[in-house]
Amino acid sequence: MNHEKILINGAWETDPSEASFTPENPATGEELDRSYPVSSKATLARLASHAANAAKALNHCDPEQIAAFLDNHASNIDSRREEISSLCHRETGLPTKPRLQQVEMDRTVDQLRQAAACARDRSWCQPRIDTKLDLRSVYEPLGGGVLVIGPNNFPLAYNGIAGGDFAAAIAARNPVIAKAHPLHPGTTKMLAECAHDAAKQAGLPAGSVQMFYNCEPEDGLSLIRMPEISAVGFTGSRPAGLSMKQAADETGTPIYLELSSVNPMFLLPGAIEERGEDIADLIADSMLAASGQQCTCPGLLIVRDSHATDHLIGRLRSRLAGAPHQVMLSSGGVRHLHESVQAIEALGADRLIGGAPVEGNAARYEHTLLRTEADHFLANSDEMQNEMFGVAALIIVCDRDEQLIECARSLEGNLTGTLHLASDTRDDELARAVSAVLRNRVGRLIHDAVPTGVSVNAATVHGGPFPATGHPGFTAVGMPTTIHRFAALRCYDRVRGAFLPPELQDTPPTPSMRRMIDGVWRTGIVERA
Amino acid sequence: MNHEKILINGAWETDPSEASFTPENPATGEELDRSYPVSSKATLARLASHAANAAKALNHCDPEQIAAFLDNHASNIDSRREEISSLCHRETGLPTKPRLQQVEMDRTVDQLRQAAACARDRSWCQPRIDTKLDLRSVYEPLGGGVLVIGPNNFPLAYNGIAGGDFAAAIAARNPVIAKAHPLHPGTTKMLAECAHDAAKQAGLPAGSVQMFYNCEPEDGLSLIRMPEISAVGFTGSRPAGLSMKQAADETGTPIYLELSSVNPMFLLPGAIEERGEDIADLIADSMLAASGQQCTCPGLLIVRDSHATDHLIGRLRSRLAGAPHQVMLSSGGVRHLHESVQAIEALGADRLIGGAPVEGNAARYEHTLLRTEADHFLANSDEMQNEMFGVAALIIVCDRDEQLIECARSLEGNLTGTLHLASDTRDDELARAVSAVLRNRVGRLIHDAVPTGVSVNAATVHGGPFPATGHPGFTAVGMPTTIHRFAALRCYDRVRGAFLPPELQDTPPTPSMRRMIDGVWRTGIVERA
Repeated sequence: MNHEKILINGAWETDPSEASFTPENPATGEELDRSYPVSSKATLARLASHAANAAKALNHCDPEQIAAFLDNHASNIDSRREEISSLCHRETGLPTKPRLQQVEMDRTVDQLRQAAACARDRSWCQPRIDTKLDLRSVYEPLGGGVLVIGPNNFPLAYNGIAGGDFAAAIAARNPVIAKAHPLHPGTTKMLAECAHDAAKQAGLPAGSVQMFYNCEPEDGLSLIRMPEISAVGFTGSRPAGLSMKQAADETGTPIYLELSSVNPMFLLPGAIEERGEDIADLIADSMLAASGQQCTCPGLLIVRDSHATDHLIGRLRSRLAGAPHQVMLSSGGVRHLHESVQAIEALGADRLIGGAPVEGNAARYEHTLLRTEADHFLANSDEMQNEMFGVAALIIVCDRDEQLIECARSLEGNLTGTLHLASDTRDDELARAVSAVLRNRVGRLIHDAVPTGVSVNAATVHGGPFPATGHPGFTAVGMPTTIHRFAALRCYDRVRGAFLPPELQDTPPTPSMRRMIDGVWRTGIVERA
Repeated sequence: MNHEKILINGAWETDPSEASFTPENPATGEELDRSYPVSSKATLARLASHAANAAKALNHCDPEQIAAFLDNHASNIDSRREEISSLCHRETGLPTKPRLQQVEMDRTVDQLRQAAACARDRSWCQPRIDTKLDLRSVYEPLGGGVLVIGPNNFPLAYNGIAGGDFAAAIAARNPVIAKAHPLHPGTTKMLAECAHDAAKQAGLPAGSVQMFYNCEPEDGLSLIRMPEISAVGFTGSRPAGLSMKQAADETGTPIYLELSSVNPMFLLPGAIEERGEDIADLIADSMLAASGQQCTCPGLLIVRDSHATDHLIGRLRSRLAGAPHQVMLSSGGVRHLHESVQAIEALGADRLIGGAPVEGNAARYEHTLLRTEADHFLANSDEMQNEMFGVAALIIVCDRDEQLIECARSLEGNLTGTLHLASDTRDDELARAVSAVLRNRVGRLIHDAVPTGVSVNAATVHGGPFPATGHPGFTAVGMPTTIHRFAALRCYDRVRGAFLPPELQDTPPTPSMRRMIDGVWRTGIVERA
């Protein structure tokens, strides 16, 4: 069995590494028929060096070329929808239709095209010009490579060589070194082929898009510390993310993390009374989507005790218990989910349903609901809010309103927080008190809906306070906002016109480009004072 | 001698600490007549807790109140110009006129007023609304206190309770805990009085502005790690900054650093031939300003060897040698400068002038010029580019053009980088080659001028790559850009109108407020889809 090749400096190359891995089909437990290299530190250093060279060339590259690359990449992926989704399904167990071939694929190509539009309109550059002082500033590429490490759960839309971080980093004219997730290396290879072809077609410098499959964790940390790496985007587990953050922090390298989140949902008494069953159905659908393997999957449900609440819990329980068990991303994921569930149980939560792997070769886990009283949760909140990555949630039952607020106060940083309120105003006072606490602990505050389903939209925020992410001022989804993560703010002080980047020259590169000139955002030529 | 009181939760309070310190007049070496407490960890925890409470109230505070506070604060300082400058002069040795009473004072009050205008126009909030999805995002306060630690060298404009970080953090409605610099605690106390009065007048919540004088370093690190602290702004020495960064990184707390910078100046052959003497004068004036104790003071001069270069060096040497020695900020600063100069000499640089403290009680140091050959610098560049904080620069003489580029390549992150070019095009090719390397290593690139003199302007960047700062995407000077450091990006997903912040409601809080509505920046009401 030959190793698949890595994409390095514009060419497919056999990795000299002896070490390799072979992914499994999580639906059967069988090994797939390809083997992939585990790259050595020397190979990672070569990738970094080529990225640094590409950065120099990309810096002066026409944004139109970047946009063409992103558009071509999207079209290449689009034209291989079936083939990519089919392999991806074998690697991840995620359903081909509608999930991979339609929903996630649509999102992936749309995101690349949105990034292309942003590269083209340069809105992320935000040029600011003061004519009196002849002082000009603009967001520019970082100067080195961006390492993008995608997660297991969105093999297309968050893929290191096709997903949101990739699109954002490239839109700002940074070269990307993508690390495949080892659970879907074949999918990543196909996406890298699309990127490679698109890069050749657009004439991007060699080394603009590179890809490797895997490395030893300590070699990955070395790569993060290399001076050729200007930023890192990571979506994945908290322990891995925190070790990368530590490496990046040592060298002052910006790292954007999207780590765990339990996405607390506060279901207020009036709402439960009014439409408890509908809420249970909404939550069940949200939890079951992608077998719960989403960073926005509801994992904590906070309720007041009541007859209506019992009814809601009963409904949720029967919906989850009645749903067929889906294949999860890997047997490792099942093991990890089981450990997380057992840990919460060991802390004293009662198991309502589930709590065990499903027998057989497929990676599956019983849909799980745990329950605890608010006092018990509050006494153990640090550990009881640990993520259970799968169809598993902990219900916290409060016997007075203040406990809902206390629960909110005990929460770590999360990507989302949700409130369900009655349609009249009876829940408003409690909602205000909970919101005041919850608002500072989540990136996206939701009313009367579920946290799953993140739109690629300029008005969204897929972010939040540490440890959900690494910085509360950024979003991992949404154009052009997400591009700022991979840009440096740079100033030109009395720099001669011939040395200014196009965005800061007296005559703008495009007539529609908006620039802040002497305090006013406008289009048009700069009249030098 | 009684300790001066600290400002805690809206009142002046005697710190129970036994530990204290008394500043010296650096012009005489004599102790000043006041003593200040060294606050304990318990006191720091109280400050943090009051800040967290204030954050809750400030979050819903009318921006007009914030603006009124900042304007009042500016006016209070303005009305005490002479008194503040006079004490500040005794504490820092900086000249009263024009430096403290005019230049720095003007900048300080102007900066506060610019921040007031930004608080009022809310431009830093950048509201984005998507009507189809009913998705809305906005920058908001961080949710806790901001710790601001000002430097020794700008006792007014960067003061923890009156300077740029303070103004930016407050403009975004965050409470501030200011730590005085122990070299000018009396100045800081007066500024805190101005802030305290302004806060009372504007009706800000108690705990919005607090101030302490000093603490043990490890207690300061504990404060940074406290969950009530949402961000840190620090301007000062690299070792102190890096230890704070480590503490902040551990808890995922954003920290904005402004550390050392040697501000390399590349003086190209044509420019030296054309106007070497003028350049020498410009540099001499820039180095001598504030006795070289500025973060943008030129510390590395990179030149080609030539007769004209010898002449430039001679002129610079005589200008520096002929200038009177000014009082430095402290005898500790003189000691530190001497150690830095000796370290560079020990690495093999030749001393042209200076290199020793000036005899007497005043804290003064000889104006110092060191010189080395490019090959020697390049072989020792890590240590030879260490900052000498004072009137001291290292001249690097290259014997071929490539060495200038190599020198640029050897540089760490800096706040600024400067090129002097001939007025015709003879230096352009070399300038392009140097710029291509230098651009990624500095925040502000300058032509034909000097790096000192930073305007508070929307188009400036006082920032740059690590280790000059902690993040390349931000600036420490310039409104409203600098406010983003202290803001969290937050999203409201289908949140009911009554629960939206004013900036995101269908009717904007001010008719002139620009919001991105369905992709277009505009004023006016949102028509819900």
